[in-house]
Amino acid sequence: MTTAVSTTRILAAEALGTALLLAIVVGSGIMGSRLAGGNDAVALLGNTLSTGAGLVVLIHVFGPLSGAHFNPVVTLAALFARQRRPGLAAAMMAAQFAGAVLGVYAAHLMFGEPVLQVSTKLRGGGAQVFAEAVATFGLIGTILGTQRARPDFTPVAVGLYITSAYWFTASTSFANPAVTLARSLSDTFAGIAPASVPGFLAGQIAGAVVGVVVFEWLLARPGQDLPLDEFRGTDQ
Amino acid sequence: MTTAVSTTRILAAEALGTALLLAIVVGSGIMGSRLAGGNDAVALLGNTLSTGAGLVVLIHVFGPLSGAHFNPVVTLAALFARQRRPGLAAAMMAAQFAGAVLGVYAAHLMFGEPVLQVSTKLRGGGAQVFAEAVATFGLIGTILGTQRARPDFTPVAVGLYITSAYWFTASTSFANPAVTLARSLSDTFAGIAPASVPGFLAGQIAGAVVGVVVFEWLLARPGQDLPLDEFRGTDQ
Amino acid sequence: MTTAVSTTRILAAEALGTALLLAIVVGSGIMGSRLAGGNDAVALLGNTLSTGAGLVVLIHVFGPLSGAHFNPVVTLAALFARQRRPGLAAAMMAAQFAGAVLGVYAAHLMFGEPVLQVSTKLRGGGAQVFAEAVATFGLIGTILGTQRARPDFTPVAVGLYITSAYWFTASTSFANPAVTLARSLSDTFAGIAPASVPGFLAGQIAGAVVGVVVFEWLLARPGQDLPLDEFRGTDQ
Amino acid sequence: MTTAVSTTRILAAEALGTALLLAIVVGSGIMGSRLAGGNDAVALLGNTLSTGAGLVVLIHVFGPLSGAHFNPVVTLAALFARQRRPGLAAAMMAAQFAGAVLGVYAAHLMFGEPVLQVSTKLRGGGAQVFAEAVATFGLIGTILGTQRARPDFTPVAVGLYITSAYWFTASTSFANPAVTLARSLSDTFAGIAPASVPGFLAGQIAGAVVGVVVFEWLLARPGQDLPLDEFRGTDQ
Repeated sequence: MTTAVSTTRILAAEALGTALLLAIVVGSGIMGSRLAGGNDAVALLGNTLSTGAGLVVLIHVFGPLSGAHFNPVVTLAALFARQRRPGLAAAMMAAQFAGAVLGVYAAHLMFGEPVLQVSTKLRGGGAQVFAEAVATFGLIGTILGTQRARPDFTPVAVGLYITSAYWFTASTSFANPAVTLARSLSDTFAGIAPASVPGFLAGQIAGAVVGVVVFEWLLARPGQDLPLDEFRGTDQ
Repeated sequence: MTTAVSTTRILAAEALGTALLLAIVVGSGIMGSRLAGGNDAVALLGNTLSTGAGLVVLIHVFGPLSGAHFNPVVTLAALFARQRRPGLAAAMMAAQFAGAVLGVYAAHLMFGEPVLQVSTKLRGGGAQVFAEAVATFGLIGTILGTQRARPDFTPVAVGLYITSAYWFTASTSFANPAVTLARSLSDTFAGIAPASVPGFLAGQIAGAVVGVVVFEWLLARPGQDLPLDEFRGTDQ
Repeated sequence: MTTAVSTTRILAAEALGTALLLAIVVGSGIMGSRLAGGNDAVALLGNTLSTGAGLVVLIHVFGPLSGAHFNPVVTLAALFARQRRPGLAAAMMAAQFAGAVLGVYAAHLMFGEPVLQVSTKLRGGGAQVFAEAVATFGLIGTILGTQRARPDFTPVAVGLYITSAYWFTASTSFANPAVTLARSLSDTFAGIAPASVPGFLAGQIAGAVVGVVVFEWLLARPGQDLPLDEFRGTDQ
Repeated sequence: MTTAVSTTRILAAEALGTALLLAIVVGSGIMGSRLAGGNDAVALLGNTLSTGAGLVVLIHVFGPLSGAHFNPVVTLAALFARQRRPGLAAAMMAAQFAGAVLGVYAAHLMFGEPVLQVSTKLRGGGAQVFAEAVATFGLIGTILGTQRARPDFTPVAVGLYITSAYWFTASTSFANPAVTLARSLSDTFAGIAPASVPGFLAGQIAGAVVGVVVFEWLLARPGQDLPLDEFRGTDQ
């Protein structure tokens, strides 16, 4: 993270980046389901392509400003790794949640949907919780694993990972509490019923904890930190 | 931009590049809708893949010559940022509009369609205008955001952004006045009825203005310019 | 091209690379049409993904050995640009044609098809010829344009270009006489009836000539050659 | 391979990496076939996208630790090339097989499937065996060919190659004995009946042997080794 960036701009970057991420996830889900004629795999292909490609761009644009977390689980892990001060971490997470909700609303506005919605799409059961744990475990591994040996590849790696995880996890890989809560406010393709949110959050936190423990052990090297930021630019 | 490139070649690059861009957008739209058997999501997948991949190539090929704007909104922003002289900027925009129309005609010729057409595809309503504003805002952010920290990634970022925006914006992200006008001359998958053009242009201009203001503030660094060209080569 | 590579290995690289290219083009066409349940756009998506991704790999693998032409039009252009001696160019083209035919046969064997076939798929008419001219013009522009400013990107650019051109040209972009002749020997998705071959070849040669003239003018720089090889490695 | 990595961590990396690879292959196959409404080409598109993207990430994450083989055929080739000691190679292959089985079970758990299954999907016949030989020949060529001229591209090349080979080989390119055996334990989209396993293994071994012989000859350069590891990092 560039030390010269003011707190205001860090928080603006996290809020705007997370808002655009949610506009992408929810918007492309609506587009896919409207056009796919009932074939959900075709809808998910469009949703996946849009999310993966968009995420790579967002991390490149906002990474030099805030680290491009867009995800409270990543910010929490950075807090425990002493890469963020507690006050800044808390503010970043607030910005992520606020941005996520605004992004969902922006998607609704673009597609002529009612702005305020609550999802009715149940995603319950232990298998879904386990899938979210795997999804978040893999996301943490992607960030930590690439940050050490090839940090300039991390933004692309995160985009490719989510592209993959939309399909290989039964939950389509939310892997992000801010994304999860915000998606409960959209009764569209990408939505999740509020009743299913707590299980998803539990899976995400469990997966993140196991991920940090496993990958810190695997990748450890004396005297070298493993940053959780998703970007390390050439001018930093 | 390479200073050694003559004005003639700059304008030829903008005209030819924009022509190829429109041939790609309109041609792959025709191919998709002809083959997809009525499933518009499948048609849009092909249209997206072709446009995103083609755009990355075009920016690499023409970027070292003209900056690879292919877009009057980008050229206008470069004019206000004093990165282009008024005369050259005006000529570049003329080349973009002329090239765009020729590209649409080339697509029609390749697919055995009548060359001269007028679209009947209405894309009206405030939601579509808002979607175009979001699309253009994001395009400006993609260019400005990557030009500072990782300029060699800008061509790929623009291709990925459009790949994403074809799906997450309700308007399938025209984000370009030359593209918009030219697409009104094609009564095919990618067309737009002339009646819907003014709203699209208004949305694009609004999104571009907000984008320049927001991202110049976010990314500002004393004494450093943020170029709007989509290419900075290794030999320049 | 590495000067230390023997002629035998250059020709083996051209033959094997072109064989694998045709196995990819024809094999993925068969796979797509068998699985797609009659939706040709879905079949073409698989065909495109496989060809684009495979081409990037093949150029990286064989580029350091032979330049990875796989295409008589590219070798001819290199001959006229004095980048290949006449004897070597002729032998390379022979290797390309022989490899292309063997690649088609390998695809037939993999899919349990009769090895010897003749296509019955007519692709006639002036629009198709024009489409092949556009496709080959664009391929030449992709190679020449990226070789000057960013040569290490050429292999990816060629893969992305073909990905795009499978959709935006009405002929699905053969853009290669060896590929065209070999595909006339397969009565499957990727085939072309012998009666349509001469028109395709005429379009390809016309497009290549125009492409070399236009892009040599656009990209000219005193004292600098524009190589037509699709690879310039880091160790050469 | 980093010499400072302990044997325990090397084996953990191979086991965990191969487990995630199988979770991706089998999981995305289940997702695809559940959502695609019977269109197997659409299911295979999702399966392909997920596997190709995931593989690129896994090789970047685990490559610096173990070389990211995930494949007994690659480890065997590295053994014969004296790039691994016999004891370590044997342990790595055991880790690959164990990880592969656990990955299949993880996919079943995520999708609420019975953990223990045996595939009933016959993939028999000489054409399939030949297809596996071609698939593995190409995989070896991809690794050896890119390792010499552009080693930092190998992880992406392997992902692109498998993306391509899922479509152009009639067998959907297993190209890996650990993957083949593990997939016999899943009666889902990606499964293979135990009766078809021996033929696949025979094809893979034949293709690998021919691949090593052909590409070592093609790429040979005095005094230079061709490593079979799929990653060479910047800090190694």
